[in-house]
Amino acid sequence: MAKTMKAAVVRELGKPLTIEEVKIPEVGPGQALLKVISTGVCHTDLHAVTGDWPIKPQPPFIPGHEGVGYVVAVGNGVSVVKEGDRIGVPWLYSACGHCEFCLTGWETLCKQQKNAGYSVDGSFAEYVLVDPNYVGHLPAGVDFTPIAPVLCAGVTVYKGLKQTEARPGQWVVISGVGGLGHLAVQYAKAMGLHVVAVDIAPDKLELAKKLGADLAVNALEPDAAERVLKETDGGAHGVLVTAVSPKAFSLGVDLLRRNGTMTLCGLPPGTFSLSIFDVVLNGKTLRGSIVGTRSDLAECLSFAAEGKVKVTYTTAALEDINQIFDQMKAGKIDGRVVIELAKA
Amino acid sequence: MAKTMKAAVVRELGKPLTIEEVKIPEVGPGQALLKVISTGVCHTDLHAVTGDWPIKPQPPFIPGHEGVGYVVAVGNGVSVVKEGDRIGVPWLYSACGHCEFCLTGWETLCKQQKNAGYSVDGSFAEYVLVDPNYVGHLPAGVDFTPIAPVLCAGVTVYKGLKQTEARPGQWVVISGVGGLGHLAVQYAKAMGLHVVAVDIAPDKLELAKKLGADLAVNALEPDAAERVLKETDGGAHGVLVTAVSPKAFSLGVDLLRRNGTMTLCGLPPGTFSLSIFDVVLNGKTLRGSIVGTRSDLAECLSFAAEGKVKVTYTTAALEDINQIFDQMKAGKIDGRVVIELAKA
Amino acid sequence: MAKTMKAAVVRELGKPLTIEEVKIPEVGPGQALLKVISTGVCHTDLHAVTGDWPIKPQPPFIPGHEGVGYVVAVGNGVSVVKEGDRIGVPWLYSACGHCEFCLTGWETLCKQQKNAGYSVDGSFAEYVLVDPNYVGHLPAGVDFTPIAPVLCAGVTVYKGLKQTEARPGQWVVISGVGGLGHLAVQYAKAMGLHVVAVDIAPDKLELAKKLGADLAVNALEPDAAERVLKETDGGAHGVLVTAVSPKAFSLGVDLLRRNGTMTLCGLPPGTFSLSIFDVVLNGKTLRGSIVGTRSDLAECLSFAAEGKVKVTYTTAALEDINQIFDQMKAGKIDGRVVIELAKA
Amino acid sequence: MAKTMKAAVVRELGKPLTIEEVKIPEVGPGQALLKVISTGVCHTDLHAVTGDWPIKPQPPFIPGHEGVGYVVAVGNGVSVVKEGDRIGVPWLYSACGHCEFCLTGWETLCKQQKNAGYSVDGSFAEYVLVDPNYVGHLPAGVDFTPIAPVLCAGVTVYKGLKQTEARPGQWVVISGVGGLGHLAVQYAKAMGLHVVAVDIAPDKLELAKKLGADLAVNALEPDAAERVLKETDGGAHGVLVTAVSPKAFSLGVDLLRRNGTMTLCGLPPGTFSLSIFDVVLNGKTLRGSIVGTRSDLAECLSFAAEGKVKVTYTTAALEDINQIFDQMKAGKIDGRVVIELAKA
Repeated sequence: MAKTMKAAVVRELGKPLTIEEVKIPEVGPGQALLKVISTGVCHTDLHAVTGDWPIKPQPPFIPGHEGVGYVVAVGNGVSVVKEGDRIGVPWLYSACGHCEFCLTGWETLCKQQKNAGYSVDGSFAEYVLVDPNYVGHLPAGVDFTPIAPVLCAGVTVYKGLKQTEARPGQWVVISGVGGLGHLAVQYAKAMGLHVVAVDIAPDKLELAKKLGADLAVNALEPDAAERVLKETDGGAHGVLVTAVSPKAFSLGVDLLRRNGTMTLCGLPPGTFSLSIFDVVLNGKTLRGSIVGTRSDLAECLSFAAEGKVKVTYTTAALEDINQIFDQMKAGKIDGRVVIELAKA
Repeated sequence: MAKTMKAAVVRELGKPLTIEEVKIPEVGPGQALLKVISTGVCHTDLHAVTGDWPIKPQPPFIPGHEGVGYVVAVGNGVSVVKEGDRIGVPWLYSACGHCEFCLTGWETLCKQQKNAGYSVDGSFAEYVLVDPNYVGHLPAGVDFTPIAPVLCAGVTVYKGLKQTEARPGQWVVISGVGGLGHLAVQYAKAMGLHVVAVDIAPDKLELAKKLGADLAVNALEPDAAERVLKETDGGAHGVLVTAVSPKAFSLGVDLLRRNGTMTLCGLPPGTFSLSIFDVVLNGKTLRGSIVGTRSDLAECLSFAAEGKVKVTYTTAALEDINQIFDQMKAGKIDGRVVIELAKA
Repeated sequence: MAKTMKAAVVRELGKPLTIEEVKIPEVGPGQALLKVISTGVCHTDLHAVTGDWPIKPQPPFIPGHEGVGYVVAVGNGVSVVKEGDRIGVPWLYSACGHCEFCLTGWETLCKQQKNAGYSVDGSFAEYVLVDPNYVGHLPAGVDFTPIAPVLCAGVTVYKGLKQTEARPGQWVVISGVGGLGHLAVQYAKAMGLHVVAVDIAPDKLELAKKLGADLAVNALEPDAAERVLKETDGGAHGVLVTAVSPKAFSLGVDLLRRNGTMTLCGLPPGTFSLSIFDVVLNGKTLRGSIVGTRSDLAECLSFAAEGKVKVTYTTAALEDINQIFDQMKAGKIDGRVVIELAKA
Repeated sequence: MAKTMKAAVVRELGKPLTIEEVKIPEVGPGQALLKVISTGVCHTDLHAVTGDWPIKPQPPFIPGHEGVGYVVAVGNGVSVVKEGDRIGVPWLYSACGHCEFCLTGWETLCKQQKNAGYSVDGSFAEYVLVDPNYVGHLPAGVDFTPIAPVLCAGVTVYKGLKQTEARPGQWVVISGVGGLGHLAVQYAKAMGLHVVAVDIAPDKLELAKKLGADLAVNALEPDAAERVLKETDGGAHGVLVTAVSPKAFSLGVDLLRRNGTMTLCGLPPGTFSLSIFDVVLNGKTLRGSIVGTRSDLAECLSFAAEGKVKVTYTTAALEDINQIFDQMKAGKIDGRVVIELAKA
């Protein structure tokens, strides 16, 4: 095996990444090495690279947390994966395993968690270390490139939908039909929900309809809210906000039915404002949701393996990474970009 | 029976109430007449009188929605109450009985609901009409005056606590130890919760401790939040905000544990601001809660009947109503003021 | 309007019904009269006619509780339905509206409930009295005959499935593919569940597959249980028993995954036996479920209106009623028999 | 440190244990050694020794799974405990950490679990190996002997009570006031529940009352069920069966309120019989519950640390083990017997 690998490295926050030849990391006890075939590019990678979140990553580091491929080496004491296994490395690189959150199925809230491509090196490289206890296991029959974005975008919206507590037959609004939202529309339909897609780009609304949305509404239309309230006969039981604009958050609250729940899973910097009167009198609930647990990941991979959810994507090379971020900033990406690093 | 009764009437929003002799209302089919022995005075009455909520009541009207006493007349077709029954009229004067909310135990969200002392005449009078299907039934052995505030303040905080989803053995913050909060402390203890009381008045914190709070923290102390986070080992599982200041809302969010839920049940006009990063990364939930259903009311009356919850109150006469509101505006009331209209 | 109507009357328990000309009932205050267009025949009608349940109906009476048609008269004080409304009369003819069950969305457990075709006259007649507060409201666009069985068979299995607490993507076993089970398969699929159909009749298993079951297993095969456990990777998250044989109950428990829930909604007389060791060590849950609430009914009618659930039925005349019961006893009915009483 | 230790060993199922000097086990990687100060004796130990469960332990082995004491040695790679830590070894000795149950807070249902004193050696010895990831951590301030039974009896009933889903203010029946039941009464009270204790021994009913039961009923009284139904106004919302007689199971079902839940946590061999009509028409739920997770254990230790739950116990020496089992078979033990092996 080679000693070095190609990687996209952040040398300074806010600066372009450099494509470098770096040492392949050594596999310590309890670790495994993943040969990356494909890796999705997520908005969170852009936050990492830019350093615009309160807690910042420490350069130099390699971003990426939607990497999928084969296990090529396992460290001492590892029995849950073996060479040749098809796995993926998610945002939740590892957790402590012992805190109250880890013990109750909320490992995503563990305060000792490590995050791939943020606090440890990620998948924008030919190889990446993983904690075998926290990887995703790819179902038989799925190809690498189209499944990669499920590792983060997929599980994030799947969990977010669960957190709205909307039941089959009820209405859910998917606000924002980008990398996350276009998957959310499909998960929601597979969960028996009625879907209203909301965006400001006509082509994204068109995509949402093609993916099964029962209704697609342009948020820029002056009567957008009225129309949704009317068509859903009083508002949506659940709202999932994947859009990263504060306006989307406010509109989301307006689209909620009495007793409904809005889940936030996008992470734009900043705050948003709530009308106390509206929230109290209408019994509305708002909650944050961050990626999903290993159990959520296994479930949402199954939906994809059954063909109920399909990622819309374009492929790129690792060398394209800076252009991809430019496109992302400009809101020009349809679905997801997946970088292909090797042949399957 | 007399033809007229004494009542406190709002003739113009924002003006003092007048004590008048008015006609005792006639009891129509499906109605009953309640002879009011005692009635609590609630912050919502002040909102009604001031007219500072988006939807305003129409003068002339009689406020009051914590009135308790005897049934003295029943209309045609009424079988659920009879003369002599000890009942109370709550904020939820009536609901439609047929909408999705009424059919699923969420009658408090019914869009056709009527509210005592707001959209129909209330209990600041010697007699008040009630809808027998929606009254509270007073348990044997409770006295009128001390139970009156349970009809609104009690059920509001009891439901709000349930809505935090905190379980016995977990921590709950009660923010604001006034008419609502001093009952919330007691309900929380009776529900097996650990209680942090938060207020800015030393005497109210003292009262909270006397009522069983495990910890009482002055929100004005610079390290208030740090102290609560430390003592609860990471924040409270539930937060109930009864205070009416936007600052209390922000502090409440800060005091939440990861995965915790904050319930808002006060209704100050205005908005408050949420940090998206905090809500998402920490998996926090916020929800509004408005009074409680008939089932909630029956439950919380039972706690009071067992002596687990006792209202702190002072008594007054109907003629004192304008001074009571003045004291309320000045934050000068300990617990609750209950107006006594007749001897039991 | 005519003074008399045709009806199928039980004069003596256990004896054939007689087709008689009887008085059309008078519409009292708070009631309405339903002109029956179609009415399904349910296994419960057979129990009523036979009198084999602990609590027996009092002859003479008219069975039937899946009757649909038009409102043709309303009594004093009725505002929730009006002449011409398309409605249906369900098993839950009325409930008290005030007990702890009625107040919390569990009116199906009200101890004061009346049941159509059992404690009050039902829909095997040209006209039937209804309590307007408890009727089902037929969605626009559904025809009478194919929707009739949803009024009982549909809501029973829909509620039963909800009570298994199985989530989209999980496995549910539908045991018995008769009048209830063939609808359960469709509701389960519409709710995003994976379905195993279990029966002992090959043609019913064939029907289940046609309706979307992912797997169909003949309970008479010696390795039936092993096969289900293998295909579901450990058993089903939920089991819904619609079959009326005690053997089906035992097999149902065996097919449960650890932590899974089995709902019983059939009502054969008798008992069944549980292995304590199995239930405790595997954390299994069993629960009874009886029809559904008005809210459940509205939800399951919506699924049907969207075309996601279609009743398999044959039509018959009221005069056929005794033969229908004979066929039912012999297990010879595919799906449901619907009696047509008038043209829509 | 010594090389050998005193232990109570099962050489043959169904025969008396022998007190032997055996080798202190070596501490492998990922393990720790617990010096046992005290260990409770549980009914499950009797099942192990007798070998009367379907899956039998393999002699020779050392029973015991309520052992508490100090960590005296840790193996390679262990960071979650250190020498001197005060810990306890529970029935759930270890679980796989990766199955669907482990990942969702249901490790007690893991099919790869090991059980202390059954599939691996337990705490009836001066030393016992533990898996540091699965031990209980004793809160500061609790003494060893009185806390030992919380490790199994405590967590079992605490979890069982949670599984009844009864809420503060509701009624719960505790059937059987022995080692488990006398703790259940106290946990139930601490959780804000109303308690009916049911047993057939007057002194145990007396103990239940002393521990806070609101009502104590002798199951041998002919009107026992009627009395409970009357006092609870319709039956208990939850029933916890800790008794090991099939009669107790049947009575438990009879004492359930409509919509109520009965949890089984005792494990007598055999079956019990359910009336289908009763379960369905009354919407009753039955479920098995087996010990509790690490999170449940931490919670129930906290209740004990606060003094809200106190074990009634007598102490014994390891050499008394066979007599203890004799007393247990005869139903002669009040509360729990705790064996003291060393001075704290």
